[in-house]
Amino acid sequence: MKKISLLGATGSIGLQTLDVIREHKNDFTLVALSFGTNIKEGLKIIEEFRPSLVAVKDKETYDKINIHVPHQTRVVWGIEGNVEVAIYEEATIVVNSVVGSVGLMPTLKAIEAKKDVAIANKETLVVAGHLVTEAAKVHNVKLLPIDSEHSAILQALQGENKKSIEKLIVTASGGSFRDKTRAELKGVTVNEALNHPNWSMGAKITIDSATMMNKGFEVIEAHWLFDISYDKIDVLLHKESIIHSMIQFHDGSVMAQLGTPDMKVPIQYALTYPERKVLSTKRLDLWQIGSLHFDKVNGDRFRCLHFAYESGKIGGTMPVVLNAANEIAVQAFLQGEIEFLEIETLIEHSLNRHQVEKHPSLSTILNVDKDTRLYVRSLIK
Amino acid sequence: MKKISLLGATGSIGLQTLDVIREHKNDFTLVALSFGTNIKEGLKIIEEFRPSLVAVKDKETYDKINIHVPHQTRVVWGIEGNVEVAIYEEATIVVNSVVGSVGLMPTLKAIEAKKDVAIANKETLVVAGHLVTEAAKVHNVKLLPIDSEHSAILQALQGENKKSIEKLIVTASGGSFRDKTRAELKGVTVNEALNHPNWSMGAKITIDSATMMNKGFEVIEAHWLFDISYDKIDVLLHKESIIHSMIQFHDGSVMAQLGTPDMKVPIQYALTYPERKVLSTKRLDLWQIGSLHFDKVNGDRFRCLHFAYESGKIGGTMPVVLNAANEIAVQAFLQGEIEFLEIETLIEHSLNRHQVEKHPSLSTILNVDKDTRLYVRSLIK
Repeated sequence: MKKISLLGATGSIGLQTLDVIREHKNDFTLVALSFGTNIKEGLKIIEEFRPSLVAVKDKETYDKINIHVPHQTRVVWGIEGNVEVAIYEEATIVVNSVVGSVGLMPTLKAIEAKKDVAIANKETLVVAGHLVTEAAKVHNVKLLPIDSEHSAILQALQGENKKSIEKLIVTASGGSFRDKTRAELKGVTVNEALNHPNWSMGAKITIDSATMMNKGFEVIEAHWLFDISYDKIDVLLHKESIIHSMIQFHDGSVMAQLGTPDMKVPIQYALTYPERKVLSTKRLDLWQIGSLHFDKVNGDRFRCLHFAYESGKIGGTMPVVLNAANEIAVQAFLQGEIEFLEIETLIEHSLNRHQVEKHPSLSTILNVDKDTRLYVRSLIK
Repeated sequence: MKKISLLGATGSIGLQTLDVIREHKNDFTLVALSFGTNIKEGLKIIEEFRPSLVAVKDKETYDKINIHVPHQTRVVWGIEGNVEVAIYEEATIVVNSVVGSVGLMPTLKAIEAKKDVAIANKETLVVAGHLVTEAAKVHNVKLLPIDSEHSAILQALQGENKKSIEKLIVTASGGSFRDKTRAELKGVTVNEALNHPNWSMGAKITIDSATMMNKGFEVIEAHWLFDISYDKIDVLLHKESIIHSMIQFHDGSVMAQLGTPDMKVPIQYALTYPERKVLSTKRLDLWQIGSLHFDKVNGDRFRCLHFAYESGKIGGTMPVVLNAANEIAVQAFLQGEIEFLEIETLIEHSLNRHQVEKHPSLSTILNVDKDTRLYVRSLIK
């Protein structure tokens, strides 16, 4: 029986993680969870799974739910509460599916508490890949990606020697605007951006897909997860999202993982790794799909991807700026404060202004994160 | 240093095996080889690789080459000679790339001599899968496929549990006539049949590709190599021959091996398994290829594939008849004695006439093989 702590239970990945747990009640049990302010969904989950510990966003939410939870469930709140869930003693694995760099601290604390971490929170590795991977080594725990691309690479790497890797090929659907030219991107609306062709995901990541920043983050994550230099990570446009990513080995052989777009597959794989368990997901029928398409990524068209590669290569605090600027800019776009293409401009200004610091500590990272957010907000208003 | 015995050195797979050995002179050495009657090519190979033992087809060939080989090379001939090469003491692995059921005896003898066998000779497993796999178990040796499809499956199986397999998906280019209707197959010529769209191979296997009997043999081989029932083996038309085959696991995940069509990759993988070594083959560029296509196999159109599935399911001596009838029919077609579609008819007559024997011994197999060949010849003349 694997005991799971789930951070971000009411989000898209959180809810799908619950589906996986439901399908394997004899193998998995949910002992602790956190969510933000979605009280209705949160109480339903608590009622069904009866966790011992629950963290919510703030005191206000705490006050609203505390009287409604079963007596064996303890409720806590705030960042400290989230960390309490991450290090909850009974848990052997933590699923971190919160969105944004707020996911960093619980990941680090979970690792220090010697728990394996299944990471859906990509900002964790983007802003502090060096700290997180180093901590995982020191405390001898596994970092398991919950992400169709990195899960594909992890699966393709099974039974192989990492030294045989010649290249990682990360596939990209191209997001909501893949068929638009740069000129056509001017004036696109929030609703258009939220309409992803293949995946149903949260708002932040859907916008990140439209700008291809999401793919940029994945390149940085792949660098840290698989200890591969940036010149050995390629991005390939593949609009059907059927091949989730590939490894090219030094004998010329390419191993790929395929499937219908369903996050339950990588979620479950992270929980069962290196084994597989039966999962009732829709099976892939390639003859029904008929054909798969591939194209080069145009760097001028997708500037955020270019920013990510450059920030990743520079390293240090540069990806912290990349991520913080992106978080504020995407938020502003979602709230109708800026145009779609201004997301790129705001990130570019932030990167150009930044004096990079190599090997930053956690406090430096948090300072740069905060400073960048304030700077980007100042540009908007 | 891996010491290799190579059966069928002057054939297509044989020559490509030599290329692989050339690229890894510090890892592989050729200690023994056999070839048929291609004296010019054979002598060139002997001169370059200086094996200790060489087998040729007959006394006549022996007489012609014996005086030309280096003094440390011993020359033998005939079926016994081929077996001598297969069991040559110094060798640790035997590459069996002879064509036709004549490859069976050397495979069995090599296994009994406790040598790993890299099998390009597919008839070995088609006619005597039960004997070969049983012998490999008893003598604790590896059977390593040299075949893009089975090598792909073997690669996709690395690090996985066989119990997690839900389905094998064997891809098929469809051969030279994949775009022709059944009516258009009447009157096709030998030269048209030999013009395979993706792979450059020997004549026999190219015709087997055009009839899809080759794919049928591969289904039977996959059954034996991976111990999978026939209802869990699918054939998928994929005209580009880029995805070489796939495994669908019980979590819905599909692992595939891809590459440019180059037999050196599976040849080398069989020799280095489970490791990989650098190989200077052309790298796959999916964006240059642009798209991959998939289609269902039409059973009425490709009757040989249907015959193979049925013969495989019936088992016993039925696949022996399938293979022997096919060998004689293909030979007759290549010699202009019959039409292309008569290959199917001759096989069908042979299968219908046969009284199957379950669990046949080697001598029963050889008798059925001989009897079927005589029968098919009697139908032709």
